[in-house]
Amino acid sequence: MIKRRKTKVLDIGGVKIGGDNPITVQSMCNTDTRDVKATVHQIEELQDAGCEIIRVAVLNKEAAAAIKDIVKKIKIPLIADIHFDYRLALQCIENGVSALRINPGNIGKDEFVKKVVTSAKEHNTPIRIGINGGSLEKNLEELDIPLAEKMVKSAMRHIKILEDNDFDQIKISLKSSDVLTTIEAYRLMAQKTEYPFHLGVTEAGTLKGGLIKSAIGLGTLLADGIGDTIRVSLTENPVEEVYAGWQILKSLGLRKKGVNFISCPTCGRCGIDLISLAKATEERFKNFDKNITIAVMGCPVNGPGEAKHADFGIAGANGEGYIFKKGSIVCRVAEDKLLDEFEKIVLQDTK
Amino acid sequence: MIKRRKTKVLDIGGVKIGGDNPITVQSMCNTDTRDVKATVHQIEELQDAGCEIIRVAVLNKEAAAAIKDIVKKIKIPLIADIHFDYRLALQCIENGVSALRINPGNIGKDEFVKKVVTSAKEHNTPIRIGINGGSLEKNLEELDIPLAEKMVKSAMRHIKILEDNDFDQIKISLKSSDVLTTIEAYRLMAQKTEYPFHLGVTEAGTLKGGLIKSAIGLGTLLADGIGDTIRVSLTENPVEEVYAGWQILKSLGLRKKGVNFISCPTCGRCGIDLISLAKATEERFKNFDKNITIAVMGCPVNGPGEAKHADFGIAGANGEGYIFKKGSIVCRVAEDKLLDEFEKIVLQDTK
Repeated sequence: MIKRRKTKVLDIGGVKIGGDNPITVQSMCNTDTRDVKATVHQIEELQDAGCEIIRVAVLNKEAAAAIKDIVKKIKIPLIADIHFDYRLALQCIENGVSALRINPGNIGKDEFVKKVVTSAKEHNTPIRIGINGGSLEKNLEELDIPLAEKMVKSAMRHIKILEDNDFDQIKISLKSSDVLTTIEAYRLMAQKTEYPFHLGVTEAGTLKGGLIKSAIGLGTLLADGIGDTIRVSLTENPVEEVYAGWQILKSLGLRKKGVNFISCPTCGRCGIDLISLAKATEERFKNFDKNITIAVMGCPVNGPGEAKHADFGIAGANGEGYIFKKGSIVCRVAEDKLLDEFEKIVLQDTK
Repeated sequence: MIKRRKTKVLDIGGVKIGGDNPITVQSMCNTDTRDVKATVHQIEELQDAGCEIIRVAVLNKEAAAAIKDIVKKIKIPLIADIHFDYRLALQCIENGVSALRINPGNIGKDEFVKKVVTSAKEHNTPIRIGINGGSLEKNLEELDIPLAEKMVKSAMRHIKILEDNDFDQIKISLKSSDVLTTIEAYRLMAQKTEYPFHLGVTEAGTLKGGLIKSAIGLGTLLADGIGDTIRVSLTENPVEEVYAGWQILKSLGLRKKGVNFISCPTCGRCGIDLISLAKATEERFKNFDKNITIAVMGCPVNGPGEAKHADFGIAGANGEGYIFKKGSIVCRVAEDKLLDEFEKIVLQDTK
């Protein structure tokens, strides 16, 4: 249903970004990158949660050196996030990162840029230009135009520097902590370039508020067909970023991964403790790997019909529940045995 | 920045819906409406959280009778949600509801519709036509067209019934549990009518998944300028629906209410326990009633600059933090005194 924007395609350590390739879910470690053990441990947790590309901050030589050990121990591509220092970029490329996030306009002298680009070309290392609405060039900040336009201008400058060095393995992000500015910046940029986009709302906040800002920002763009890889930024365990990223893509039908869960907001019509039942059902099927839709509905009269597109469902009644498949009730079970029975039926039918 | 769709304006118990009026936040009780005490108690909680219009399910005569007592005890307009039975609609109007949610095509005989419309006109009681993608008329379901188009066709039929009875105090909703279908249905409908819209994604699920589905669906439409009143549906305490509704509107700059909170996702650069600090700061200012932006950033070098649009901020360093205003650092405080000192400064400056 969503027609994706046309883009060039990048290869980030074997994961293709852009074109018709699946939109990937990224996250970023919040460990000290010099601590190889802690960083690898977190990356493994994120891999298990569904993270497809991981980024780490590289602040100094020791962190850049640690990259060498980290990449050996993980299964997903690693991106190094670097500010200003071209030597760290060179070191990370040598040490096997799959891509860099560095803004070429901030590297300094032309010869430094050339060195980074030459090495990136040799190693097939794409570069993400990561614009942040809060840290633009001073002469752009002073312009009397909307922030989104400044961000696009900034991105175009950085792109030009790379293109002047005959480099086109480029990915762009234009993140603002303001949702509308983020949406506007990507939409403008989409008219100007065919490079693939990494989507994100920056500094989105803690879990609930951050989910909402990210879902609006990323969701609006993805529904437009804009976006090739995404990172939800949360002030929270980054595992939550990965769950949220997948949930956004699944909600828009852009990826499939396990259960699509729907449940109604209990109302005066509801005869059982639906909130607990819904949470328990969702938890029970959290790691289920078949792409099915499960519905938990409060009402035996309207529930099965309203959720007839669900593969399996439960509808509560007084002290018991009905299990249904594709809208048709298959059995009635006492409330305390409902979830076990439901799981048995789903497992049988999907094996 | 968002240009809103032109609509007619309704008056729901003194709260105006549509036109340039503020987009309102609704919720629905999950109590048994016959239980006046429990229902009023929940409505009071929801009022306190910022709920501006409340809906209750009316399943039977006893519930319709309870409306009379409920409306006397609450401060926000009450909407009765009724299926099929025109007598309940008449009873609720008599008992003082501010609006109805009932689909006229499901009421039955023409004379029943006429009775409801006549009474609704007399009492200035608007009617919401609430289309649910899971419960359409059978002859529409059989059509070989996308679900969103079927939903719009259904809405147009119900509208025609009311208009044929010379009634135009109408509000429309077109909810599906599928996010893209919901977006598509409202977009199509926006081209066909000037009646105001009540937005919602139905059966969105439990907290996190439900926030994401609702934020994408409602956010995408609101960013388009579509939507005049919203309800986030969650299988959760409905207070969470109200918080989420406000957060969606605030994130898009459509309403202001208290603190806009931004915080960065800690990375390898961060020197303090930012996740705890961000959560504690957000909690401390949860009920603060000034419309300010507060930032909690992990990094004393980039933080204040990146968040210079924030009125007040904290940037963490090693074992201490910097407090900044509009990007300028005003003092440095030990980590254990940071939040108290920050609160003092914010309160002083905003009183």
